[in-house]
Amino acid sequence: MASVTESLAANGNGACAAAAPLDALPAGRDRPAALISPSILSADFATLADECKRIVDLGADWLHIDVMDGHFVPNLTLGAPVVACLRKHSKAFFDCHLMVSDPAAWVQDFAKAGADMFTFHLEAVADVADLSASSAHPAVADLAKAVRAAGMQAGVALKPSTPAELVFPYIEAGLLDLVLVLTVNPGFGGQKFMEDAVSKCAPLRAKFPGLHIEVDGGVGPSTIDAVAAAGANVIVAGSAVFGAERPGEVIATLRSSVERAAAVGAVQ
Amino acid sequence: MASVTESLAANGNGACAAAAPLDALPAGRDRPAALISPSILSADFATLADECKRIVDLGADWLHIDVMDGHFVPNLTLGAPVVACLRKHSKAFFDCHLMVSDPAAWVQDFAKAGADMFTFHLEAVADVADLSASSAHPAVADLAKAVRAAGMQAGVALKPSTPAELVFPYIEAGLLDLVLVLTVNPGFGGQKFMEDAVSKCAPLRAKFPGLHIEVDGGVGPSTIDAVAAAGANVIVAGSAVFGAERPGEVIATLRSSVERAAAVGAVQ
Repeated sequence: MASVTESLAANGNGACAAAAPLDALPAGRDRPAALISPSILSADFATLADECKRIVDLGADWLHIDVMDGHFVPNLTLGAPVVACLRKHSKAFFDCHLMVSDPAAWVQDFAKAGADMFTFHLEAVADVADLSASSAHPAVADLAKAVRAAGMQAGVALKPSTPAELVFPYIEAGLLDLVLVLTVNPGFGGQKFMEDAVSKCAPLRAKFPGLHIEVDGGVGPSTIDAVAAAGANVIVAGSAVFGAERPGEVIATLRSSVERAAAVGAVQ
Repeated sequence: MASVTESLAANGNGACAAAAPLDALPAGRDRPAALISPSILSADFATLADECKRIVDLGADWLHIDVMDGHFVPNLTLGAPVVACLRKHSKAFFDCHLMVSDPAAWVQDFAKAGADMFTFHLEAVADVADLSASSAHPAVADLAKAVRAAGMQAGVALKPSTPAELVFPYIEAGLLDLVLVLTVNPGFGGQKFMEDAVSKCAPLRAKFPGLHIEVDGGVGPSTIDAVAAAGANVIVAGSAVFGAERPGEVIATLRSSVERAAAVGAVQ
């Protein structure tokens, strides 16, 4: 695993002050603290305020909010007006995952609605064939900057088929707070975990010890150990949490798996 | 105003059995009963189950559900997963207005979610320049049939700039239960009523006495008399109802205006 010093050296443009990925970690850990972010895609959308309060009271760190526009993915869930209403009921960290075909169009709406994290898909902003591991695409860099300028943290999401290396230039430039690795094809809850996809967390963690690496898709008690071993620290779980008889126990199980892996530097 | 008999005669293909627009009206009225359909676009999206129960208890006949995909209109609200959750809490009539660029893609999802009325935009299905008042466009007719085949009632919505006559062929063919006349440009709540747009209700009511004619956009106590005089019987109101101190009184005011106009045959 790369040390923090090596990671700093890898930062080509020397910018580091504001970049979460380059923050020093406490001794004896290989990643930031575990954060469990239950996805409201599996909650009752008719009682969101209650659902969110319940899950935060049971130990959730963040709320993962799946925004789908029916174009980038074949499902239409909710948009900024719903987030704005929920914000009046909750002080939770709103971890918004935009599965939309034009994420730049929604930056201001989500900032006004009270989003904390704005994670957009690399594939929605540029043709994957036009991206490289060695240089930043201006549209991606500009969007990440716009997200932060609007007062939110910036994340980039990768479909299962998109290589992890394509997001390196933006992390190295200090533009990102989080990378979201999808372990299902986005669009619906309740899908089966794709074990191959999670392996892309390992090179990300090795290179960026302080980065928030989030995994979403089919994560639950039966798959969390593979996710934790690969280096993730932010865990999205939908049906595994909201569908559980004791959601608080599932949240605790997910957290302890990540913390065990973090303490032993178990990145594979 | 055309009589029911004249309206039947105007039905070119002779199909009439299932068509609400051709139902006989009780003596002494010029339109179906008033139906007040508050728009949940102005409700608290974080407590939808409670909001819908409250407004139905206060006298709402239908619930108007604004579905926007961020492509047909520059706002992204909610989709079928939200409707499906709400259905578990409410037996109300779900009056779904699809402001989406490909409404045909959502018929099955909304039927499964429990939608009662599926109203799609004429402008989303065909180029307005390709439509005529004298013949049906196959894509529009096919979609209306698909909506009914899925077990829902079929409605067509018209933007303020789209002439009413372009929807005549589908009503005459017995394919539609409702025509929705927008009196604002779709996309956001709280806009100012466009008085010119409401005038297109009159020729629709004159030709189709039994048709549900719905008006949406800036309707409230100060504009309802113009809407009622033009011949509408289904009234959408968002902020005027949900933003009122006494929503039940607003619903009653809207209803009595329509009923007064219906009893005197006040179509202008």
